[in-house]
Amino acid sequence: MIIPRSHPRYLSLKTREQLVRANRSGIVVPEGLIAHGRGEAFDYILGERTRPSAEKAIEAAAALLLTAEKPVISVNGNTAALVPRELVRLARAVGGDVEVNLFHRGGDREKRIARTLRRSGASRVLGVGKEASGRIPGLESMRRKIDPSGIGDADVVFVPLEDGDRASALRRMGKKVIAVDLNPLSRTSRSANVTIVDNVTRALPLLNRQVRGLKRYNKRRLVRIVSGFNNEKNLIMAVKEIMSYLNKWNGV
Amino acid sequence: MIIPRSHPRYLSLKTREQLVRANRSGIVVPEGLIAHGRGEAFDYILGERTRPSAEKAIEAAAALLLTAEKPVISVNGNTAALVPRELVRLARAVGGDVEVNLFHRGGDREKRIARTLRRSGASRVLGVGKEASGRIPGLESMRRKIDPSGIGDADVVFVPLEDGDRASALRRMGKKVIAVDLNPLSRTSRSANVTIVDNVTRALPLLNRQVRGLKRYNKRRLVRIVSGFNNEKNLIMAVKEIMSYLNKWNGV
Repeated sequence: MIIPRSHPRYLSLKTREQLVRANRSGIVVPEGLIAHGRGEAFDYILGERTRPSAEKAIEAAAALLLTAEKPVISVNGNTAALVPRELVRLARAVGGDVEVNLFHRGGDREKRIARTLRRSGASRVLGVGKEASGRIPGLESMRRKIDPSGIGDADVVFVPLEDGDRASALRRMGKKVIAVDLNPLSRTSRSANVTIVDNVTRALPLLNRQVRGLKRYNKRRLVRIVSGFNNEKNLIMAVKEIMSYLNKWNGV
Repeated sequence: MIIPRSHPRYLSLKTREQLVRANRSGIVVPEGLIAHGRGEAFDYILGERTRPSAEKAIEAAAALLLTAEKPVISVNGNTAALVPRELVRLARAVGGDVEVNLFHRGGDREKRIARTLRRSGASRVLGVGKEASGRIPGLESMRRKIDPSGIGDADVVFVPLEDGDRASALRRMGKKVIAVDLNPLSRTSRSANVTIVDNVTRALPLLNRQVRGLKRYNKRRLVRIVSGFNNEKNLIMAVKEIMSYLNKWNGV
């Protein structure tokens, strides 16, 4: 058995500290910290690197966002804490809006997140307070709230770190869903049209770069990229990437 | 690709709620929630079941605790929140003590945890306040505090959910270390003498049952169980168990 490098590395430790601070300032809920831990573990067995399956999904996601009529970038507490600037940049690059979309609403958490997004350059933030008057059918309570002029009206929704119930409910509403999820077996991963199995802190900068790169392509070429992508096959590829990483310790 | 049963199951959800409550009451720190999330993810890819490798480690752990001169059961915030009664029961069954042993000390967290242990039946709780005047060599600040009449004097230490630095520092002090860690690749797992790759909520009741079962064995038989156990081989077995679980989704 080879001894792998010590873990956690500096980067995952820095991210962890960011989350703990955001928890203290009321942006990240306790459940968000647990969810982050799950992500850390899956990232660990992916070798904490963006793998080929993720690169493929990032390309498909960029093409899908660029061909969308009305793309919306959904933002929750964890992503607001980790990659607010990248999310605002993405919305701007694809001609869409950011929308605060929380599993656990309440207090002025939405407002804090909206403030973070505005400080990160967003001129408009959807989904705050009374604006979240729309409903996702089939979900109960706070989890179903959406902005009718945002996710409610979108054809493509980018939902990094989404919950499984909501991802599939958005699909049933006829929306195309792009998820970022480090667990390739999760319901979110399996119900999205495009799942990026990667850490948001690595995936978002790469996605923004890909969007800039594909922007000069014509629509036909972009549509071809999207239709050439098979999410199920790509998730199996991600599982294989995990297994090949684990295999390193599975010998002598 | 087969669709696995929906996740999280009731049990992991209940455990998660227990942790969130314990965070609110000051027993579990934010870092503990993140660590719990990591455990959830590894448990997920183990199929949320006690696997043969864990059963083997539990048997070796029980034998090692029963042959110890002075066993100590180390308790942190997460284990106090999840399995306080089982920990106290284990200490009593092997003729040892429970000691509060925290990565993040401060406030009256130690006292809260001690109170939880007393409410769970402990008549004596080590490692609280000034009693934690001992030091683990090679570690900085709060993380090195131990009770000289507890872990400081122990030959066998049971440290469920321990940090890697401390587990190896305890080894360097000449102690036998038993860890419970769902990540078979972690430094804790690799530096312990016996690592139980299982969820503490499943492993502790099984360990207590095993202790009751082995109690009537003579010392020679117990020593033979301990010396027949190879932690490195057992960890490779745990990695294989994960891979065989992942393999289910790695086909068509």
